[in-house]
Parts: sequence; structure tokens; C-alpha cells
Amino acid sequence: MKQQAEYLDAIQWNTDGLVPAIAQDAESGRILMMAWMNAESLQRTVEEGHAVYWSRSRAKLWRKGESSGHQQRIRDIQLDCDGDAIILLVEQAGGIACHTGRQSCFYRSLKDGRWENAEPVLKDPDEIYG
Amino acid sequence: MKQQAEYLDAIQWNTDGLVPAIAQDAESGRILMMAWMNAESLQRTVEEGHAVYWSRSRAKLWRKGESSGHQQRIRDIQLDCDGDAIILLVEQAGGIACHTGRQSCFYRSLKDGRWENAEPVLKDPDEIYG
Repeated sequence: MKQQAEYLDAIQWNTDGLVPAIAQDAESGRILMMAWMNAESLQRTVEEGHAVYWSRSRAKLWRKGESSGHQQRIRDIQLDCDGDAIILLVEQAGGIACHTGRQSCFYRSLKDGRWENAEPVLKDPDEIYG
Repeated sequence: MKQQAEYLDAIQWNTDGLVPAIAQDAESGRILMMAWMNAESLQRTVEEGHAVYWSRSRAKLWRKGESSGHQQRIRDIQLDCDGDAIILLVEQAGGIACHTGRQSCFYRSLKDGRWENAEPVLKDPDEIYG
């Protein structure tokens, strides 16, 4: 428990007690999503070996993949220089991180002043959550 | 100006009018840093072709590289599904994004409950900012 407190203490939690967590595919390097963690979700992530976020909209722990099956197995966790952002290097189950059925949530790209969809839907969300 | 408003309107700015921006090296895929942008900094980034952040500590626009020379040339800008995070795909001048002289700000890695330095210092910060 002492050691756990130590790594959690290094983090500059924001005024809501959260830190942004960037999930990156360990193989391809693609950034899959960004979500938020509180201390408990990070601790659970470390202990369980799969990403557990804090859902701000639902105000509860969110085990990524609990309904979709698209879990994120942790390969590495990295902290930045000022301690206010982390990276999760993950193996993405199903190759799909986004609830829209795409690999990455960052599927929109800015072209000539407009956001254009730049990634295919790999699986119909109705199938994922049906 | 209309088109600029359109892409800015798609963003879910937080209560401080900011959005997290993740800078990723366009060649290696390494995540270099995470910083914040307000609407003006994103607009300037798009117009100038180099990353311009909002410094929360100094409460002013922050042209990345203005003192270090380590500018970030924009290759692509990506928005996530719920519009509350963006990626900047960049060419990192000097190969150094971090003020500590490392390639990436995310140079600490969690090993056995402790953060360990996992990236070399490429250039002495005194040289960068001296």
C-alpha cells in the first residue's frame, strides 16, 4: 500500500481529482482515445492489468470493455514531466476503441477548415452493444 | 471566418474554454506532450502551421518553441468522437519536445509501483534555454 501511495502522489490531480489518460495502441502507435482517471481508477488499472477509467458523465468507475468486450490490456503506463497527464500503452481487444465502431476515437481530421471522417467503421455499434 | 467558426464550434471546450491537445510525432508515432488550447490558440495553430498552446500557468498564448526553437510543424489535426480532445500530428524541430531536453515529456514509466526515467536527455536544458 505504501508503494501504491507513492506513485499516486506523483500525479498532479486536477481540482476534480482527475488526470487525463491517453490510450495508445502498443503495436501501431495509434492514439485510441483520451479519458479521465481518478486515483482509484488508476490503482485498479495497475492491479487488474486492464484500463479502468473514471466516467465523468456517469460519475463512476468505468471498466473499458465491460459492455463492448473491447478491453485494453496494459503494457506500460507513462507519466509526463509535470505529472498532469498519463499514457496507457495498451493491447486493444477487437482492434476497436471507439463506441462508433472505429479503431480510434480520433477519426475526424481537419481539412480546409472542416472536420472530415478519416477512419472506417469496423463494426456496427448495434452489433457491439446489441 | 465562417468556416473557422464551424470547426471551432465542433469542439466541446471545458468550463475554462480549453481543450486538451496531444502532440504526436508524425514519423515515429511517439506521443510528445499534452498541453491545452483555447479557441484562439487552435485558430492560430491552423493559420500559422505550428503548434500554439494556451499556457494555463502564464495565462497567455504559448508558441511552442519560441524560446527553445523546438517548434512543432503541423501535419494533421484530429478530433475525437465527443469533441473534447484533439491530436496534433507534428514534425518536432530538434527531435525534442520536453523542457528537460528529452524527446517526449512522457519519459517516466511505471515499474513495480515506482516511476522510473525511461528516456535519455538529448540536450542539456541549460543549452536549450541558455
